[in-house]
Amino acid sequence: MTDANIQNIYDQAKKWVLEAGERLRTKMHQPLVIETKSDANDLVTEMDQETERFFAEHIRNTFPEHRVLGEEGFGDEVSDLDGTVWIVDPIDGTMNFVHQKQNFAISVGIYQDGVGVIGLIYDVMADCLYHAIKDQGAYKNDEKLKELKEVQLDSSILCLNSFWTIENRRVHEDGTQALVRKVRGTRSYGSAALEFAYVAEGSIDAYITMRLAPWDIAAGVILVNEVGGVTTQADGSALDMVGKNSVITGNPSIHNEIIDDYIKLK
Amino acid sequence: MTDANIQNIYDQAKKWVLEAGERLRTKMHQPLVIETKSDANDLVTEMDQETERFFAEHIRNTFPEHRVLGEEGFGDEVSDLDGTVWIVDPIDGTMNFVHQKQNFAISVGIYQDGVGVIGLIYDVMADCLYHAIKDQGAYKNDEKLKELKEVQLDSSILCLNSFWTIENRRVHEDGTQALVRKVRGTRSYGSAALEFAYVAEGSIDAYITMRLAPWDIAAGVILVNEVGGVTTQADGSALDMVGKNSVITGNPSIHNEIIDDYIKLK
Repeated sequence: MTDANIQNIYDQAKKWVLEAGERLRTKMHQPLVIETKSDANDLVTEMDQETERFFAEHIRNTFPEHRVLGEEGFGDEVSDLDGTVWIVDPIDGTMNFVHQKQNFAISVGIYQDGVGVIGLIYDVMADCLYHAIKDQGAYKNDEKLKELKEVQLDSSILCLNSFWTIENRRVHEDGTQALVRKVRGTRSYGSAALEFAYVAEGSIDAYITMRLAPWDIAAGVILVNEVGGVTTQADGSALDMVGKNSVITGNPSIHNEIIDDYIKLK
Repeated sequence: MTDANIQNIYDQAKKWVLEAGERLRTKMHQPLVIETKSDANDLVTEMDQETERFFAEHIRNTFPEHRVLGEEGFGDEVSDLDGTVWIVDPIDGTMNFVHQKQNFAISVGIYQDGVGVIGLIYDVMADCLYHAIKDQGAYKNDEKLKELKEVQLDSSILCLNSFWTIENRRVHEDGTQALVRKVRGTRSYGSAALEFAYVAEGSIDAYITMRLAPWDIAAGVILVNEVGGVTTQADGSALDMVGKNSVITGNPSIHNEIIDDYIKLK
């Protein structure tokens, strides 16, 4: 792709993300829509599907040669990243959507022959857009995000859900428990996309989790790259952007230390 | 106190909270202030003390018969809650203040002969004020917060830091680990005052922690009361508002179940 092509795709993607976000916000502010659903899960399913369909239709109409990879089934069967692929999570953080009516995001990552070129993460209710074009830096709204500074593990804050520090199927809890003791503090926000965005803005120093789909991470990886961060699977191997992944994303000064000394996958 | 007195105290307290918040925001937006501090901890100490002094001076000048209980030493020696006592946390969430430059709060709880009458929690960087006067409901900015609805534990979201789900000095981790498995999800935000506010707004169903000072909880207890929530120590006993406490605050439909079935203090 030429730079002009990428800028055009970015402009369209940004426009659609903001428009889809506006539609979600409008729904969330209609008490009748929220209250009359027999089950809040019905609402998130409906909104999830409607938003993914919105992206799939716009992408196909405007860029018919592009493909779409999403969770809800309105995209294409995608088993490789040849050409241009949009990886879309219409609502990342569905539990937050249902329970909190906030703290969820639209995540759109655009890949060209396997290379992430555009990342957009939109905190819908806060109206806060994290965005990046490869090699042009990452932004939070209009503010350019700074390069990550070197940190020490014992003065770091990590995002790590309690679920991974108790006995579980994927990672040995003695390692993650030692990590909790080592770091200054842990947080958990319930949206992978936003947790990637918080790594990119430097609010947290790393985010660790054991099972994510491509649409949870596609945009975040690009944002974190742009500030000098690193993302791999939890054993240090490369991500598979068409499969499931364990994930460690964060500051390069602590990334290897976490993998080497604290993470033992099952 | 008469209602008119309470309203007058509330009006003053709100004005000072917003003014103190504005001062903190201004500091945070001055890159030179942030960058030139040799240690970010120096900044939070300075801001913490400056803000507590601001409250202590205003309270003494305006309400000389009131007493002030705070962490930083500008208040009074308070060992009982006779009369009117302001319990002030100038910066709740100091780790967030240092690392994130957001997600911290000013917390002010005002007690009359041991009864909480006014609670204010101000999310400074989000410019979001949670506030309540006893028996008049709780508000998030201008929006009145709803009474908490009945929930089931297995569809609840709890705030519980990983630290309490691994071996620690205060609570048996087998119980808290079972709780993590039982609930729908856990979160951790790093500010006790804000976690109380999230309980009050219904974003989370309970918040559990093992050691807090009065200034961490004084305002939150009042907010949670106003939406029908319950706050006790983690063994179900009453809070001690002049001592250290373990804390469970949350929806009354799950509060006792958590205490009875999952929390075993050491």
